[in-house]
Amino acid sequence: MLNSVLKDSEKYQPGLSIDCVIFGFYDNQLKVLLIKTAYSDQWGLPGGFIPKDEDLDLAANSVLFKRTGLEGIFLRQFGTFGAVKRNKGHFNDGIFDALDTPLEERNWYLQRFITIGYYALVDFLEAVPQRKKDTEIVEWIDHKAVPDLILDHQNILDKALETLRMELNLMPVGYNLLPEKFTIPELQKLYETILDRKLDRRNFLRKITAIGILTKLDEKKSNVAHKAPNLYSFDKEKYEEVVKNGLHQGW
Amino acid sequence: MLNSVLKDSEKYQPGLSIDCVIFGFYDNQLKVLLIKTAYSDQWGLPGGFIPKDEDLDLAANSVLFKRTGLEGIFLRQFGTFGAVKRNKGHFNDGIFDALDTPLEERNWYLQRFITIGYYALVDFLEAVPQRKKDTEIVEWIDHKAVPDLILDHQNILDKALETLRMELNLMPVGYNLLPEKFTIPELQKLYETILDRKLDRRNFLRKITAIGILTKLDEKKSNVAHKAPNLYSFDKEKYEEVVKNGLHQGW
Repeated sequence: MLNSVLKDSEKYQPGLSIDCVIFGFYDNQLKVLLIKTAYSDQWGLPGGFIPKDEDLDLAANSVLFKRTGLEGIFLRQFGTFGAVKRNKGHFNDGIFDALDTPLEERNWYLQRFITIGYYALVDFLEAVPQRKKDTEIVEWIDHKAVPDLILDHQNILDKALETLRMELNLMPVGYNLLPEKFTIPELQKLYETILDRKLDRRNFLRKITAIGILTKLDEKKSNVAHKAPNLYSFDKEKYEEVVKNGLHQGW
Repeated sequence: MLNSVLKDSEKYQPGLSIDCVIFGFYDNQLKVLLIKTAYSDQWGLPGGFIPKDEDLDLAANSVLFKRTGLEGIFLRQFGTFGAVKRNKGHFNDGIFDALDTPLEERNWYLQRFITIGYYALVDFLEAVPQRKKDTEIVEWIDHKAVPDLILDHQNILDKALETLRMELNLMPVGYNLLPEKFTIPELQKLYETILDRKLDRRNFLRKITAIGILTKLDEKKSNVAHKAPNLYSFDKEKYEEVVKNGLHQGW
């Protein structure tokens, strides 16, 4: 973000940022969109500041749109991170000098930042990773192969994943991460990847069917030589209903 | 808070506050600790600012301690509220004039505030509602009889309750809200009060027993004439284990 947003530091809420954990599912991997900027050798989460005249959720949507080109996608706040020293020492004079950063902007970056974490579930094939500057690298990285991250971003990522796993027990999530048509084994693989463990095929089929959100299509997966599995789609209306009311009546 | 915290507005993170939804269970009611201050006729949630040299969670603990006298109690962040207009128009010159508020402090209160919500579960009989000034009123109010609240505090309260209901499906919560010894009907009543619906006695007994966190004591409830019910306590170790791992293996 350095040197690009602060024409006028008065434009943003001071000491506050947004960080987005953007998940996509592809090649049986749960991937995270990460960014490497000119000011660090390490990767980090895409983020941004909060314009004074923008609602918080809208500002989060902007970050997402700028990094994926997607609008109206599943985005959920999952935690606010506020350790005193979380961004202490992240920037130094060397970086500022190299980038010829004006004093006011240096001070902006050196203040204590509390950051609000959002996670997003996107259709991998629809999202187009976007950089703002030539010096940036934006890439999907398997969440199991994430390198060292800047600041407390690993902590933020861990917490997002923990939330996603928890929410898997509360609501269906496949809708946002899978293409429109999919097979049950593909759906199971998504769940296994998020939960990081194998699931029993019969149990999964029984449970996922019982939710009543799947529509069996009159179509089979193509390009499969032998025993082509059936294709399914989500019944959007029922899906939304379950998201709203929760999976478990529990007690 | 007005006129009491801002000896020096430089001391706090600008534009950021904390609001605490403090729940207690008594007389078969889920109660919320609310405050009425000199600057408003309406009730509001107890809150505070974030000292620049204090971690966010610590600042939330301070609010809780100041309002209940309790330390080390269950406290959980559940959401950050950041609509642009959430505190717009809340203060006006009339209030500031009446309280003889200096200009710098007026400006502090007039800035846009994003607030971080925490909810706490406390033992009603242990918590001692505390006011900071004579002009304040601090009271436990049944969550079903909460009057009009300031700002977006009703929204914050609703969200806290929604989170609590959800977490009831994920982990045991009674430990923080009940006295050390309790009966199964008392525990069931707590769950029914939070969920706002009746539960089947046998089902509840079966489910709560299956979790394996209850210790049956060799003691009966006194002051009950007929068929005195057994007292139970939580097995703290197992309880913590279930809180950590979650109630449902789910998938």
